[in-house]
Amino acid sequence: MYRSHNCGELNASHINTEVTLAGWVQTVRKFGSITFIDLRDRYGITQIVVDNSTNTEDYIEDILKIENLQIHNPEQKGFDNIKSVQREWVIQIKGNVRERENKNKNISTGDIEVLFKDFKILNTSLTPPFTIEDETDGGEEIRMKYRYLDIRRNPVKNNLLFRHKVAMEVRKYLSDLDFCEVETPYLIKSTPEGARDFVVPSRMNEGQFYALPQSPQTFKQLLMVGGMDKYFQIVKCFRDEDLRADRQPEFTQIDCEMAFVEQEDILNIFEGLTRHLLKEIKGIEVEKFPRMTYEHAMKTYGNDKPDIRFGMEFGELNEFAQHKEFPIFNAAELVVGIAVPGAGNYTRKEIDALIDWVKRPQVGASGMVYAKCNEDGTFKSSVDKFYDQEDLVNWAKVTGAKAGDMIFVLSGSANKTRAQLSALRMELATRLGLRNPAVFAPLWVVDFPLLELDEESGRYHAMHHPFTSPKPEDMKLLETEPGKVRANAYDMVLNGNEIGGGSIRIHDKTTQQLMFKYLGFSEEEAKAQFGFLMDAFQFGAPPHGGLAFGLDRLVAILGGQETIRDFIAFPKNNSGRDVMIDAPSAIDNTQLNELHIQLNL
Amino acid sequence: MYRSHNCGELNASHINTEVTLAGWVQTVRKFGSITFIDLRDRYGITQIVVDNSTNTEDYIEDILKIENLQIHNPEQKGFDNIKSVQREWVIQIKGNVRERENKNKNISTGDIEVLFKDFKILNTSLTPPFTIEDETDGGEEIRMKYRYLDIRRNPVKNNLLFRHKVAMEVRKYLSDLDFCEVETPYLIKSTPEGARDFVVPSRMNEGQFYALPQSPQTFKQLLMVGGMDKYFQIVKCFRDEDLRADRQPEFTQIDCEMAFVEQEDILNIFEGLTRHLLKEIKGIEVEKFPRMTYEHAMKTYGNDKPDIRFGMEFGELNEFAQHKEFPIFNAAELVVGIAVPGAGNYTRKEIDALIDWVKRPQVGASGMVYAKCNEDGTFKSSVDKFYDQEDLVNWAKVTGAKAGDMIFVLSGSANKTRAQLSALRMELATRLGLRNPAVFAPLWVVDFPLLELDEESGRYHAMHHPFTSPKPEDMKLLETEPGKVRANAYDMVLNGNEIGGGSIRIHDKTTQQLMFKYLGFSEEEAKAQFGFLMDAFQFGAPPHGGLAFGLDRLVAILGGQETIRDFIAFPKNNSGRDVMIDAPSAIDNTQLNELHIQLNL
Repeated sequence: MYRSHNCGELNASHINTEVTLAGWVQTVRKFGSITFIDLRDRYGITQIVVDNSTNTEDYIEDILKIENLQIHNPEQKGFDNIKSVQREWVIQIKGNVRERENKNKNISTGDIEVLFKDFKILNTSLTPPFTIEDETDGGEEIRMKYRYLDIRRNPVKNNLLFRHKVAMEVRKYLSDLDFCEVETPYLIKSTPEGARDFVVPSRMNEGQFYALPQSPQTFKQLLMVGGMDKYFQIVKCFRDEDLRADRQPEFTQIDCEMAFVEQEDILNIFEGLTRHLLKEIKGIEVEKFPRMTYEHAMKTYGNDKPDIRFGMEFGELNEFAQHKEFPIFNAAELVVGIAVPGAGNYTRKEIDALIDWVKRPQVGASGMVYAKCNEDGTFKSSVDKFYDQEDLVNWAKVTGAKAGDMIFVLSGSANKTRAQLSALRMELATRLGLRNPAVFAPLWVVDFPLLELDEESGRYHAMHHPFTSPKPEDMKLLETEPGKVRANAYDMVLNGNEIGGGSIRIHDKTTQQLMFKYLGFSEEEAKAQFGFLMDAFQFGAPPHGGLAFGLDRLVAILGGQETIRDFIAFPKNNSGRDVMIDAPSAIDNTQLNELHIQLNL
Repeated sequence: MYRSHNCGELNASHINTEVTLAGWVQTVRKFGSITFIDLRDRYGITQIVVDNSTNTEDYIEDILKIENLQIHNPEQKGFDNIKSVQREWVIQIKGNVRERENKNKNISTGDIEVLFKDFKILNTSLTPPFTIEDETDGGEEIRMKYRYLDIRRNPVKNNLLFRHKVAMEVRKYLSDLDFCEVETPYLIKSTPEGARDFVVPSRMNEGQFYALPQSPQTFKQLLMVGGMDKYFQIVKCFRDEDLRADRQPEFTQIDCEMAFVEQEDILNIFEGLTRHLLKEIKGIEVEKFPRMTYEHAMKTYGNDKPDIRFGMEFGELNEFAQHKEFPIFNAAELVVGIAVPGAGNYTRKEIDALIDWVKRPQVGASGMVYAKCNEDGTFKSSVDKFYDQEDLVNWAKVTGAKAGDMIFVLSGSANKTRAQLSALRMELATRLGLRNPAVFAPLWVVDFPLLELDEESGRYHAMHHPFTSPKPEDMKLLETEPGKVRANAYDMVLNGNEIGGGSIRIHDKTTQQLMFKYLGFSEEEAKAQFGFLMDAFQFGAPPHGGLAFGLDRLVAILGGQETIRDFIAFPKNNSGRDVMIDAPSAIDNTQLNELHIQLNL
C-alpha cells in the first residue's frame, strides 16, 4: 500500500487524520521557513505544507531513514531534504490533514492541507520537455513524442476518462437491450473493394496474406445469418488511406447489427442510444431527431451532414437571376445564395477577403456576388449593373435575408457550387460563433443514393457498401438511371459531422449477385471475395440491417471538440507514424524470409 | 417491425393475444389435419399450430396474398401452403396465443402455442449441411466452414452470450473501482524478443513495418508513467506461433495495470474480480484464494498451474528409495510418486496400459514403478525384489497412500520427472472423474523465477517478460546464480489452467538497463527496441504492476469447458486459416507493389 488516500479525495472530514499520499510534485513554493508542495495524481492535487519551525528535527531524522530508494545513480541521492524535490518527481508523503487558512474553492481538496511528517522519494524526474499544466508550452510534435507526459495533463487525461465513460454507457445501453457484444476476427481476407487494406503476410501459409478489417461488415452480417439477432462491438478498424487532416489509420467503431428489422426500427434504437448518451453524459435532453432526405440536405445545406445549429439555408436563385443579361449566372446550372445574419455592415475589405477565401483552391469558386440588405429596405449589390431592387427583393425573399444581412451568391455546376457555398456557410458560422459546442443538434439524413458516379472511371460504385439494399420501389431504375436509385441507407449527423451511418442490407443471394453485377464485379470476382457471404444467404438469412458509429469522432463532439487526436491515447501522425515508439520500422531479414517476402524498394 | 414478440417470451399471460413472430423453422410435424411448426430464434422456440379443420379458408386466402417475397427464383414460390416450409426457412407468422394441452416444462414457452392465422416467407434455405440441434451430426471441419450455421445451435450461441456476460461483468467491476479502459494501438513496433510478431508492411513508410501487439505491455506501462493510475482493456493480441492444440493466432486479454501498488494490492484486486465473476455468473462463493510458491507448486504438483480440486500430491521418495540396490532409482536425481485413490484394484493390463501411456513421446518417461496398497495393510510392488514391506510403508506415508490405493513412482532428472508425473496425475484425475467442471478451485502461484534457462541456447531469458522486477533481496544473486533470482511475479490458476499472470514492473531506468544487459541485449538493441520506455522511466515513473487474464480460456473454464475454440465466434484452425472466409489468401501485384514488397517463395 503506497497510499491511504488519493490526491483528490481529502476534505474537511479528514481533518486530524494521518494520511499517506503518493504522486507527482506539481510545484514547490518556498516562503521563509515554510514550503508548499502541490502533490498531484490522476484524481487531483493536495497541498503539502513543510513547516521548519514546527518539525524540523522530526523530518531531518526521517530523511536519514529513507530507504528502499529505487534510485541507483548515487549522485541523485544528494538532496538535502524534502524541499529539494523537483517538478514531476514521484514521492510518497506522510502527514496530518489540517484545515487550510486560505481555502481554494477551485479544487476538491481546497479546504485542507497536509502537514508534512515523513516522506520517501519513489522516483526522480528529468525536467519535462514541456510544462505539465492545463495550458502547456509544448507544441503538437513534442507532446506526441512524449505522449506519456502529455497524458499527465488534465485536458488529455480527462478526454481519455471521458472516452471510457462514453464507451461504458454505450455498452450498458445496448447490453440492457439484449445486444450481445461479439468479437469478430482481426486477421481476415483482403478485398480490393473500398479503401486500401492493411495486410499481414502469413508465415504458415506461404505467399498468402491476411488483411486487417476495414470494418466487421461481413462478419456482423454472418452473425445475423447465425441468429445472433442483436449484435454490437466496440472495435478497431483499419484503413490504409492517405491521411487527410484528423484521420487515423486505425480508428474505433461502435458496430451494430440487428435481424428482423426495418429502417424505422434501427433509427429508433440508435436515436435512443444517442439521446441516452447526451442525457447521461452531458445532462442534455434532446427532442426527437429531425429526419431529412439526402436530396433535401444537399439542396438546403449543400452537404449530406448539415450543421443545423444555425440557419443560413440555401436559396436557389435561378428564377430570379437568369432573366437578365448577366452572362455568368445565365451560363450556370445553379445560382444559389445564403443570407448571412448581421453581415450587412461588412466592409469592402472584409468582403474582398471572403471572395479570396472562396477562390482558394480548397474551395474553388471562381468568384462571388454579394448583396447588402440595408436597414432602410434597399439593397446594394455587386451586380447592380444587371439587377434592380425588385430582383434583389426576390433574392432576399428566397434566401430569407433581413435588413442588416448580407446575401452571398455563388453559381456554376450544381454539385460543385453547393459544395462551395456549404464551405462558405460553415466558415461564416464559425466566424460568427454559431457553432456552439455546448449545443447539440442531431438529425438523421435518409434516402441516400445507392450508387455514386466515380467521375474518374465513369463507373458507379456503392455509396455505402455493396451490401446496402436498394429501396424496392427504385429497383426498376437500376438499369436505366442507376444514379437515381435510392438506398435504405441513413446517416446520423451531429453538429455538422457524420457520427454514424448504416443501412438495411440485402439478405438474399439473387439481389446480392445483381448488385455485384451492377458494381462491375465479374461472377468470379464476386465469388472469390464474397462467396462465403452469398453461400450464407442461401441458408435462411433473415432480413437485417445496422449501423456503425465512429467512436473517436462521437467522443470528440460530445466532448465539445472536433479533433479526434486529443481523444486517442496514442495517435499516429499524418504519415501514419507513432513518433513516440518510432513505428513503423525496419525488420530484419530473418523475419522477412520467414514470411516469404522481400523488400522491393 | 417484423415481430411483436420473440420466440422465447410468450407464456400464459399472453393467452388470447394476437402476436407476430419471426424466426427459423426448426421442425415441421404433421398429424392428420394438424401441423406443428417449431419456430426458433435466439431467444427460444415457440410452437405454431396449423389446424386445417378450423381455418383452412383463411390461410389459403392469406397465402395467395403473399407479397414482398424476397425470393427471386420463381420456382421457389411453388409451395402450396404453410405446411410446405422446410427446416431453416425464415418465416414471419401471425396467430393467436392459446394454452397448450400438453405443456412442455423444458422450454420457456412450453405453456402456450400460437394458432396460425397468416404467414410470410422471408427467406428459404437449402438443407443445412448438418443438423441445427444441440447435438449435431456435423464434424468440426464442416461446422467451421459453415460457422454461421453452427452459431444457430444453442451450445455455440450460448457460449457467445456467456462470453459477452463475462466481459460486461469484468468491465463493470473494474470501472466501478475507477479503472479506465484505454484503447492502445494495434499498429505498433516489431520486437524480436518473445514470440514471433505478425507484421504489417507500411505503404507510406517505404521498407518499414508495423507489428501487431503480442500484448499492450509497454503501452500500459507508459499509461502508468502518464498517471492513468488504474488501467484495463479487453483487447485482441497476436502471436505468430506454431499453433499447438487449442491456441489461436489472435486471442483476447483482459489487460490491467495499476500504479502505486505492491504485489499484495494487485492480488487482492484481481482475486476480487475473479470472486465477483464466480459469484455473479456461476452463483458460487469461493474462499480466499490459497497462495503457493512456484517452488512448492513444482515440488508438490510438478506443475506451475496445479489443479487443486483433488489431491494426489507428489511424495519425494529419494530417502526411501535410494538405499537399496535398485540402480535406476539410485542413478536418478529425483524419485517421486503419487497415490492414486482406489486404484489398488487396477489389473495388470490396466497398469501396463498406463506404463505405455507415460512412455509415449508426449510424456517421455522411460518406465514406471508401482506399488499396490492391499486392504490388509501389505503392499505388492513391481520392485519387490529390491524393496521390502518396511520401505513400502514409507512410500505410502510420503505419498499419503491408503489401503486400496496404488502408488505410481517415476524417476530421473528432477524437472523432467516432475513434468511426467504431473501429466500422469492429470490424466488419472480425468479418468477418475476428479476434474469436476462445476467445482472451481482458484489459487495464486507466486515467487516465480525471474529467469529461465533456455536449454538450446544456454542463455537465460525472462520467464514473464523483461519488465518484471526481481525481488530486491534476490538482486545480489543476479551475477552469481541468475536461475535462483525470484521475481515479483504471480499467476492466477483455476482448475489446472493459468488464467492470468503478471508482475510488479521495473520502474527505473537503471534497473531496466541492468535487466536488458542480463538478458543479452546490447545497449544499442535495448535502445532501438525499448528506448522510448527507458526514456519514459527518466520522467518520474511511479511504482506499478499489473496482470493480464486470457479471456478466451477464462470464459471457457467458467463455462465448464476447456476448449477455447467453442467460445470464439470465428476461430481459426491449426494452420491459422479461417476456413469459412478462406483466409489468408493471395493478394494482387498492385497491392504488393504499393507496399514495396514482393514474394520470396
